[in-house]
Amino acid sequence: MNLDTLYSELTLKTQAKLALVVLDGLGDVATNAQNRMTPLEAARTPNLDALVAAGCAQGRMIPVAPGITPGSGPGHLALFGYDPLEYQVGRGVIEALGLGVELQAGDVAARANFCTLDERGIVTDRRAGRIDTAVCERLCARLRERVTRVGDAEVIIQAGKGHRFVVVFRGKGLEGPLTDADPHREGLPIPAAKPVSAKSARQKKTAELVAEFYRQALPVLAGESPANGFLMRGIAHQPAIPQFIERYQLRAACLAVYPMYKGLAQLVGMTKLEGPQTIAEQFERYLAEYERFDFFFIHYKYPDMHGEDGNFEAKRRAIEEFDAALPILLRKKPDVLAITGDHSTPCAVRGHSWHPQPVLLHSPYTGTDKLERFTETGANLGSLGVFEAKYLLRLMQANARMFDKFGA
Amino acid sequence: MNLDTLYSELTLKTQAKLALVVLDGLGDVATNAQNRMTPLEAARTPNLDALVAAGCAQGRMIPVAPGITPGSGPGHLALFGYDPLEYQVGRGVIEALGLGVELQAGDVAARANFCTLDERGIVTDRRAGRIDTAVCERLCARLRERVTRVGDAEVIIQAGKGHRFVVVFRGKGLEGPLTDADPHREGLPIPAAKPVSAKSARQKKTAELVAEFYRQALPVLAGESPANGFLMRGIAHQPAIPQFIERYQLRAACLAVYPMYKGLAQLVGMTKLEGPQTIAEQFERYLAEYERFDFFFIHYKYPDMHGEDGNFEAKRRAIEEFDAALPILLRKKPDVLAITGDHSTPCAVRGHSWHPQPVLLHSPYTGTDKLERFTETGANLGSLGVFEAKYLLRLMQANARMFDKFGA
Repeated sequence: MNLDTLYSELTLKTQAKLALVVLDGLGDVATNAQNRMTPLEAARTPNLDALVAAGCAQGRMIPVAPGITPGSGPGHLALFGYDPLEYQVGRGVIEALGLGVELQAGDVAARANFCTLDERGIVTDRRAGRIDTAVCERLCARLRERVTRVGDAEVIIQAGKGHRFVVVFRGKGLEGPLTDADPHREGLPIPAAKPVSAKSARQKKTAELVAEFYRQALPVLAGESPANGFLMRGIAHQPAIPQFIERYQLRAACLAVYPMYKGLAQLVGMTKLEGPQTIAEQFERYLAEYERFDFFFIHYKYPDMHGEDGNFEAKRRAIEEFDAALPILLRKKPDVLAITGDHSTPCAVRGHSWHPQPVLLHSPYTGTDKLERFTETGANLGSLGVFEAKYLLRLMQANARMFDKFGA
Repeated sequence: MNLDTLYSELTLKTQAKLALVVLDGLGDVATNAQNRMTPLEAARTPNLDALVAAGCAQGRMIPVAPGITPGSGPGHLALFGYDPLEYQVGRGVIEALGLGVELQAGDVAARANFCTLDERGIVTDRRAGRIDTAVCERLCARLRERVTRVGDAEVIIQAGKGHRFVVVFRGKGLEGPLTDADPHREGLPIPAAKPVSAKSARQKKTAELVAEFYRQALPVLAGESPANGFLMRGIAHQPAIPQFIERYQLRAACLAVYPMYKGLAQLVGMTKLEGPQTIAEQFERYLAEYERFDFFFIHYKYPDMHGEDGNFEAKRRAIEEFDAALPILLRKKPDVLAITGDHSTPCAVRGHSWHPQPVLLHSPYTGTDKLERFTETGANLGSLGVFEAKYLLRLMQANARMFDKFGA
């Protein structure tokens, strides 16, 4: 029996409130160079400590599979309870979400970037001399003005940083993935984007739209230098993902600051609550919206950002800033509270990693693991053990008493 | 999505050096009769302790599945990163490898043993009175001399201990498994070996070759007593196993003393480095070959051997001997070092067991679990948790930074 089906069949409607607080990139490793401490271990966290004393279960979560380092997409899909191998979101879609494009089911999105072509159409610089963002925005504005439709599909163009932008095709019967319209090195012409599956009529139609887009858009850039062409990669459609409300019987809200996380939440049908910029403001908004939703996804970016820089002290301070704001959330304590990361971003790695992230779960039913703090080393000893991140939401549901008994 | 496919797609070529040191049968249980200590816990291991202080991740590995006791074949295949349930190696093949036969892909191998037949061909003693090894060797030499080919296949015969030997058929279009040419009790004639799958033309051909082998070989033994017949079991072909270099992008070398481990390494395409007899010599050879290979499998037999005898003190001393040699390996520290067993061989069991074996992983990215030693009890608290042994190689690859990020 499919496990998702079982969970679904056992799901009960309750009045419980659940909150998932994601400290992006929280997990770390305790190296000797760091005094055998992680930022979480080094941080002063009196409010987390009090929560642990009140009774929490701890453990560590494998984001995707042993040794696999996830991007933000798979990392968050797992936290939202979806198998990140079953529900894969193409790079174009992630990029569009990251730039704040409001994708709809069936949209096909591509990562694009300006390039330089010679008079024969050969790519001479795949990044068009890394033009400034301002130039990219001007060129995107012109493309947006001149190319609004291809065939029966709407075209959405959104500038990114430097030479990067995204193109979204919105219409009926579209589907990815397509091969890249990118030779992946200089000295070659731009290849046509082709269907990955020869049998898919939808991919074929989408490939024709991409070709038509090139026919319309390249002349618009003809007089430009150095950005007189563009490449398209990761051409994919927004996958059909079961929506949060049907899957979990939970009205879900997203409190995130950065577009990508809002976009990922939107993919699974969460309502985006815009406005708050600091973690304290996010928690205040949670209080204000408490009655309107059953599930709150609260995203805090900074531990990841500082981990990427290898900045131990800044990561530690970001965790302390979160801890200082935590009492706001606890003014209306959710019935089930999970605090974790979407993956580890160890300072020693200076990037996302495969190390299982620590997780803390608090409800009237977690009991205590008799640990004094929430840390990576403590989490190794916790009652949750090491488990796949996609099960966290199921454990939250269980602690919310949302599951009927299985069998008599 | 198949996980092996994912790992393969994410694999990057790097310059990293990886070493897997297998202390065969390392795992044990701490019984009260043993003063609540395992041999690993009782051993004096200053060099392992220093390695742990330098920063290691620990955990325990399930060799195949909970409660399953593996033989050396599945135990090692899992350590080599292959699912031991997906890649099964027949007993005939394992036996041939153990006797040092250089198997080739497609060879069919059978465990054989001499037996006694009466004048009507009825098996009266399935082990021919457990003849001496010297008798077995003489009879095998005679068979080897008189029966060199059956049909279009070459026959290879290798004596084992006591009444045991192996027969290998090398030719085109052969395949196992076949049913046993063994009545499994006295009082019956030797049954013909038959195809397990009625549809397999290759199994049918192989069964005909086995029958032909009996027709040629039985007359050679006709005058012997008590060993005037033989039985054949576990008739299987060497399976097609993805080779190490393609699967992991690693040039792999095997430093093992006993034939079976060399044979298992050869199955997955490792290069056998012959010569060294002691663990110190094996480590010296590792130093000498450091540049030529990316992955070193170093096998140390004695903890298992003494565990089989229930000899706690000897097992402890074997671990101490390994520890004393460890500094040689560390003269050129690999980027990723794993030290573990292929399974547990607890003194209290006097044989292989199902108990998860402890594992230690050391790299610049493991950090420390803040444990003081590498022990079974300590490993229970480690950051790697309890996981399936087939993932160890994937964790080694991750620590070698051999995996690209999954998803954006």
